[in-house]
Order: sequence, then structure tokens, then C-alpha cells
Amino acid sequence: MANSKYEYVKKFETDDRLPPSSWIVVRIDGCHFHQFSAEHAFEKPNDENALNLMNSCAVSMLEQFPDIVFAYGVSDEYSFIWKETTQFYQRRASKLLSLSVSYFTSVYVMKWKEFFPHKELKGPPYFDGRVVCYPRAKIVQDYLAWRQVDCHINNQYNTCFWMLVKSGKTQREAQELLKGTQAKDKNELLFQQFNVNYDKLPQMFRKGSCVYRKKVEEVVKLDDTGNPVTRTRSKVAVEHVDIIGPKFWSDLPYILEEE
Amino acid sequence: MANSKYEYVKKFETDDRLPPSSWIVVRIDGCHFHQFSAEHAFEKPNDENALNLMNSCAVSMLEQFPDIVFAYGVSDEYSFIWKETTQFYQRRASKLLSLSVSYFTSVYVMKWKEFFPHKELKGPPYFDGRVVCYPRAKIVQDYLAWRQVDCHINNQYNTCFWMLVKSGKTQREAQELLKGTQAKDKNELLFQQFNVNYDKLPQMFRKGSCVYRKKVEEVVKLDDTGNPVTRTRSKVAVEHVDIIGPKFWSDLPYILEEE
Amino acid sequence: MANSKYEYVKKFETDDRLPPSSWIVVRIDGCHFHQFSAEHAFEKPNDENALNLMNSCAVSMLEQFPDIVFAYGVSDEYSFIWKETTQFYQRRASKLLSLSVSYFTSVYVMKWKEFFPHKELKGPPYFDGRVVCYPRAKIVQDYLAWRQVDCHINNQYNTCFWMLVKSGKTQREAQELLKGTQAKDKNELLFQQFNVNYDKLPQMFRKGSCVYRKKVEEVVKLDDTGNPVTRTRSKVAVEHVDIIGPKFWSDLPYILEEE
Amino acid sequence: MANSKYEYVKKFETDDRLPPSSWIVVRIDGCHFHQFSAEHAFEKPNDENALNLMNSCAVSMLEQFPDIVFAYGVSDEYSFIWKETTQFYQRRASKLLSLSVSYFTSVYVMKWKEFFPHKELKGPPYFDGRVVCYPRAKIVQDYLAWRQVDCHINNQYNTCFWMLVKSGKTQREAQELLKGTQAKDKNELLFQQFNVNYDKLPQMFRKGSCVYRKKVEEVVKLDDTGNPVTRTRSKVAVEHVDIIGPKFWSDLPYILEEE
Repeated sequence: MANSKYEYVKKFETDDRLPPSSWIVVRIDGCHFHQFSAEHAFEKPNDENALNLMNSCAVSMLEQFPDIVFAYGVSDEYSFIWKETTQFYQRRASKLLSLSVSYFTSVYVMKWKEFFPHKELKGPPYFDGRVVCYPRAKIVQDYLAWRQVDCHINNQYNTCFWMLVKSGKTQREAQELLKGTQAKDKNELLFQQFNVNYDKLPQMFRKGSCVYRKKVEEVVKLDDTGNPVTRTRSKVAVEHVDIIGPKFWSDLPYILEEE
Repeated sequence: MANSKYEYVKKFETDDRLPPSSWIVVRIDGCHFHQFSAEHAFEKPNDENALNLMNSCAVSMLEQFPDIVFAYGVSDEYSFIWKETTQFYQRRASKLLSLSVSYFTSVYVMKWKEFFPHKELKGPPYFDGRVVCYPRAKIVQDYLAWRQVDCHINNQYNTCFWMLVKSGKTQREAQELLKGTQAKDKNELLFQQFNVNYDKLPQMFRKGSCVYRKKVEEVVKLDDTGNPVTRTRSKVAVEHVDIIGPKFWSDLPYILEEE
Repeated sequence: MANSKYEYVKKFETDDRLPPSSWIVVRIDGCHFHQFSAEHAFEKPNDENALNLMNSCAVSMLEQFPDIVFAYGVSDEYSFIWKETTQFYQRRASKLLSLSVSYFTSVYVMKWKEFFPHKELKGPPYFDGRVVCYPRAKIVQDYLAWRQVDCHINNQYNTCFWMLVKSGKTQREAQELLKGTQAKDKNELLFQQFNVNYDKLPQMFRKGSCVYRKKVEEVVKLDDTGNPVTRTRSKVAVEHVDIIGPKFWSDLPYILEEE
Repeated sequence: MANSKYEYVKKFETDDRLPPSSWIVVRIDGCHFHQFSAEHAFEKPNDENALNLMNSCAVSMLEQFPDIVFAYGVSDEYSFIWKETTQFYQRRASKLLSLSVSYFTSVYVMKWKEFFPHKELKGPPYFDGRVVCYPRAKIVQDYLAWRQVDCHINNQYNTCFWMLVKSGKTQREAQELLKGTQAKDKNELLFQQFNVNYDKLPQMFRKGSCVYRKKVEEVVKLDDTGNPVTRTRSKVAVEHVDIIGPKFWSDLPYILEEE
């Protein structure tokens, strides 16, 4: 029974290789995580364990896929930047997308217990994803700035919102109170009503999480004269720092190196 | 801090909505499952528990996504057929692909214990995926026939191969012995050397698994005269049947109904 | 001087082959023809010579490209239907599009003199184009019905509009008078004010033009007994007939034959 | 008769807008020009009139489409570079392609008489085309270098080939003689056998044609004191110069200016 009779169906497959000379961003996003976080009683506005679980999955991603050069996460979303010249699966969009989202999901479920030892998973967490190409390092930086500005705007709003709700307002009242307020107004409200200095809140909440390979010097052994012999090693790090300004990128030019 | 300055990066996103009037096939495939099945000591050539776990995940898929009308699985791969008229996420390829592969993966890890109570997961199982459109029911059937013929060819080969290996041949010797053999020769070999009638092996191994909604009649209550009042309900079923011939499709025309 | 150093630029080309099992429609449309028709003093609302020139170009298209099975034209637009199974240039969209629009344009300029012997071309006529795939004969018919309905609606409006303008109204007044009128009202207006029975206007104006291969019987020679020996030949014909109803297509099933 | 019933067919159209931040190259290429040039008895290896006609069409293109910043032509092919930021027809590939190839074709036929006053067109000349995106100025330069190197290789070969044929060899003999020869060998052959110094042949044959806007200073009037008042104007120029080396591009940085 040869299979040739039906093989014509393969002709319907399309070539989805992404163009050369561009960074490939895979952004994944929790599906129905509003409901998922309610079911699992996540802290509001930020659940530290849930964020650390996301970050831990992102670290696994960089360890598994060497061509991911940077990842940025906030809330239930994570963006993975594949290097400009990656030839992983011939740059096929469907492969990069499906492998990324599947591996992330798998690790998320496997590590759940580690971050929530006292909570059972009540239903399968899952993520959607998309792929976008950016042809210049500067535009990738702008993409990441876009996500970090979003993190800031959302977090400031959510912090106010949940403070108001926890203080006794209904969700609708809280919404009404915040309508039309500016960043300054929200900081003021936090300080006046709740004695909270927004800028003192944890960096992870305000800046999101950056995951990338850091070059670290490590001592391998001592030489004959007792001096340390070192070598440079790459280590995946998680940091909560500003990536909107130019400093981060000029300090670490190797991350988004152009060909 | 408005976000408008960076929002231009959204213009790099592409419109990936699939054309109307076509069935959408999402096929997922275990990544590095050769290694994964070795690490977890899967039975060769077929591990019943592993197949049942795959099937159980497929059932969850049909329960979660009402627009999947049929699924076919063999080994570590599964094809999901989305109905011709689905408007799920506006038919965006990246959404359909990422949600399918992520949900499947999530359920796979969550249900692992149920099917392998005495085996710990040693690493994250994950899957790649692809999306293909088929504009006519007949071509979808040919697609599925293609997969089932493949199942048959591979299973027959693998059955011989592992019988030979278990009987003391090296893997290379087994390979050499099978080179160039036809279906008939393989059946003969199984019967002559191992007293195995290939056609008596479990259907699941030889035919793969079909998952779809069956219409079942169920008694709701008895009426005043004591006669049963029934209603038709849909129930997701797993079956190991022939889908190459026309009978399956002519018996169940509602599955691949054309608009 | 080998060229290999620069050949990497070819990797930026994309594979634009259209999916199998679909009819390919190339629709071309006059660019700035409002201005072009004014410059060349085309008759309003329909210039018979200009339409005949368009039709003559369409006939050339079918003679040049055997895989075009049908063409439909109205005003300065023409749709060309390539047969479902065409392998012309491997079904590459850019080839089909560019060759169609270029050939049509070339013939248009070359034949201009034949249809407008007393008018010089004052500037280059040119066309834009697009490619759309339709996976079923029924949808191709609906596509063509869509164009013919459009022809009807526009022609009825334009006939009224230019009658009013020729009778002394300004263009704005004519526009105002027609705002919100139904088909029936427009027919009434033509009859009452201008004694024109819309249904008696030339078919070409009301129905547009269909171009396709007609099978004609022709006498090749007489046989020994003096009886005619005939053969069936294909001849490209231009007709102005209804293609909205099913009759045309059921009479000529070979035009949109499905594989 | 509303048209809504059939308008669903528009949903089969795809969004073909090209990504931002990239130069768009439309390359057109004569279709069956081997035969076309034979029919019209073009000079071999280069017909000066035919090349000048191509160049004249390219000049018209730059005059018609302000967003074309550069064009390069050789033989019966021409590449048009649309500027990085063009918003022409929303960067839709099919529009850019069809309008370019149609306008070029139209002008080609219209200007034929001007360049071949004593030759009638015997059949419609037409062109195919393709669209490719390049995200960086450097890669556009490499694309153009690729075309110019090709021009050089082909012209050197063709010059030898036709010299041999004109001197009495058959085409097959000429082909055999040139098989495996290097650039140096061909130059030697031309010099030894035909006393031709390849480097002295017309630049247009050896380098192809570059079309772009030159900034020229022109005197508008004299001021009160009799001094000339000048202004800078753009003028479309045709030149036959080296665009492989960096000099051309560093002298005229405005042509491929990056955003």
C-alpha cells in the first residue's frame, strides 16, 4: 500500500519561512488568565509567585533555545526575541511559534508545584502566541519599550484600582474614580489615600522582567603561583530594569548585535 | 507617559487570517519524542499508555474547542480538523496554531500522572505544529487517509523491527533484514518467525485513533404512560476504525458537512 | 568576477505560489480612467468604441493564455478566470498578475488606433490588478454575479445621471435628484422624462461582456458520399448575457469544470 | 437589486501590504524577448535603440511615480526601487507590481515609433514582474550590485559569442569555444581575434543604466544687482556608472536615505 495516492495533500502546505535579516519576536499571552488567576486566587494586582513562575519558564526557554537572545515578561505575557540570523527550523514561523508556546506551557505546568506548593492546578493553563519580524535593532528596542511602557501604565492603574477595592469601594466605583486620571494623579491618590509611594513598589511589578545571558567571570582554578585563572561564562539572568532608555542597550551591545 | 510613540511597532504585524470556505487542519507532532520515549521507557513498538494519554488529550481538545469536528492521532502526532466555517479568532492562523498546541501540551503534562502513575516526568514534553487549509471535504478525507496509510506503513515496519530486535538481532541487523520488503513479506515474516497474525494486533496500533462527536440517544425521563422520553446528545468518542474507505464518511456525513 | 557574493539577496524573495484546487481570478482595473476617458472624450455613460476595445483585448488574452477559461468585463475593468488546475508559472501570483496586466495593456495600446482611428493617445493608459483565489465553481459564479450586479447598478445610475446632465441639469443637481432612488424609480424617471425604456438599451451596457471559448461545429470536407465531415473547434466569443442565474452555467458546464 | 448577497466573495481577498521600514524592489523582465528581439531584428549582442527605449520608459516611470528613487536596467529587465517609507497604495504588493508593469508596458508601446521609426510592432511586447522587500540600504545596494555583476558577466559572454558567430562560427561552435572560459580569457579572445578592447565598448553595454533624480542648480532670474538667483531642482538622469563600489552611494546619500 504505497502512500503516493494521497500525498498530493502536501501541496496545500505553504512556505512560511520568515525573511532574512530580521529579529523574530514570539509573544505569548495567557488565554483566559483573568479567570485562571481568579480560580487560583492570585494576589491582586500582582502575584509574586505567579510572576516568578513565568520568569522561571522564560529562563528555561533561553536555556533550551540558544537563539533566543532576550525575553521580556509582564503579567501573563512574555516576548521572546530570536536573534537576527537564527536558522532554527529554517526560520519557519509555524515551527518557531508552536515550539515556543508548547515548551513554555509544558514547563509552566511542570513547575507549578514548585511555585504553588499548596495549590492544585484546577484546569490547564494555556497561552496563545504570535510572531512578528523586526528588521533593525532599534525597532526591536522600540518594541520592548512599547511593552515596558504598557507594563507601567497597566501596573499603575491596577495598583490604584485594587487599593480602592481593598479599601471598600466596589469595582465599579473604583473604575469611575480612576476614569481620566493622569499618571501624576494616580501617584498622588496612592500617596494621599494609602500612604503608598509608587516608586518604592517592587521593581518587578513596575518594570516587568528582563531575561538574558549575562557574561560572568568565574574562577576556574588557581595557577601555580596561586593566582586565579578565570573564564567568561554566559548565565541566564532575570532583572527588573529600565529598557526604554538607551543605557541598557549601549551597556550590553552584544544582545541585539546587528549582522 | 502615553504609549503612542512606540505603537508604530504594531504595524509590523501581519494579517494571517485563513481564507473562508476551507477546513483548517492543525497537526501537532512530538518534538524529540524519540528521546522522550526512551527516557520514559515507553513500550516498543507501541506504548498503550502513551497512546491513551495522547487520545485523552485529544478528547479534551474537542471538549474545549467546539469547532474542532474531528481528530486523528497516531504515535506522537495528532491532526485536528476545524470546521469549514469556524470564525474562532477570526480564523487567524497563529491563534489557532498556538492555542491548539498549548492546550494540548498543558493537558498532556497535567494528565501524565493518570496514565503513568509510577513514572515521574523527567523533562518537559513539547510539540511543534503546523496549519494547512483544505477547501473541500473530499480533500480533507484524503488528508486523513494519507495519515492513516502512514500509520499502517510505519506500524507494520516497527512491529517487525522490534520483534526482530527483541528476538536478539541488533538494530542494524533488523534494519538490513527489512530493507526492500513489501507489506506481504512483513506479514509473512511476523507469522513465520513469531507466529504473529498482524491483523489480530490491536486496532489502535494498526489504525490509529479517531476522535469525534457521536450522536447518542439517551433517556431523559419516562412520560406519563411510562414510555421513555429521549434526546440526542453529542458525546466525544475515540475509535480505531478505517477512514480510508468511503463508508465512515458516508455513515457520518455531518462531520465534514460542506456549507 | 563570480556573482556569489551578492546572491544572498535572492533569499529575500518569497514563495507566492497559490494553493492548488482553486480558480484564480485576476481582475484588472483602469487607473485614473475617469481622467483618461475625459481626455479622450469618451461618450457618456458608455462609449461603445472604448468597450469594444476592452473586449478585443480580452479576446487576445484568451487566445494568448489557454488556461484562462472565462473573462467578464464592465466599464474599464476586466476579470480573468484561470482554470482550477492551471500550472502556468507554477501558479505564482506575481507572474500571473504581472503577465496578465502587462499583456492586456500592451494590446490596449496597440489596438487603440483600430478602435479610435481619429483620436491620438494623449497619455499612457494603464491598469492596476489583483489576484484572488476561489476554491469552488459555485463561488466563482457568485464572484461573477457580484460583478454583473455591480454593472447593472452602476449602469442604471449612470444612464439616469447623464440623461439629466445632457438635459440641462448640473452634475450636482443630477446627483441630488438620484439620491436614495430605487431601481424602479430610476426606470420610471428614464421612461417619464426621457421616454427611454431601460430594458431596450444595448445589452453590452446593461450586462457587460462575457468572453469564453465556444464549441463550434465546422465542416472540414465532404466525404466520398458527399456528406459533410465536421469537427468541433473552440472559438473565443464575446457575449452580453446573464451570468447571475444558473442557466448559463448549466448550459456550458465545461467552462468551470471541477477537477 | 442590492449586491449584498454576493459581496461575501470579497472575503477571499488577502491583505498583501508589505512590511514597513523596507525598500520595495519591483523588477520587470521581458517575456519571450528572445523571440521578440528576433522578430524585430534587434542588433546583437546589444541593440542601442532597444536599450534607449527601455531607458526612456524608466525615466517616465520616475516622472510618474515620485516614490521610485532609483532604477537599474540591463537588457530587457529593469529594477525599480521604491523608497523605504512609501505609502503608495498602502504598500500593497499587487498594486505596486501591477501599476509598475502596466505603466512601463504602456509607455514602451507608445514610444516604440520614436525609437524604431522604420519598424512596425509585430506583436505585443509584455513583461512579467516580481516584488521583493529589502530592510536595509546596504542590502538594496547589494541587490543592485548583483544585477550589475550579472550585466557584466552576460555582456562579456554575449559580446564574445556574437563576435564568433558573426565571424562565421555556428552558434553551437561559439558555445563550445566559450565553455569554461574565465573573464580574462574572454577579454583575451576579444583582443586577439577581433582586436576589440572590451573596456572601450560603450558603458551602457558594460554597466547597464542607472536612472535617478539628480539635483541640479538652475538660475531662476537675476536679482536687482544683476546676480543670478538659483534654485535646486530635481532632474531624472540616465547614467552608465559603477554602482558596485561604495563611491556612487556615498556621493549621493539621499537616494537610499534610511529613515
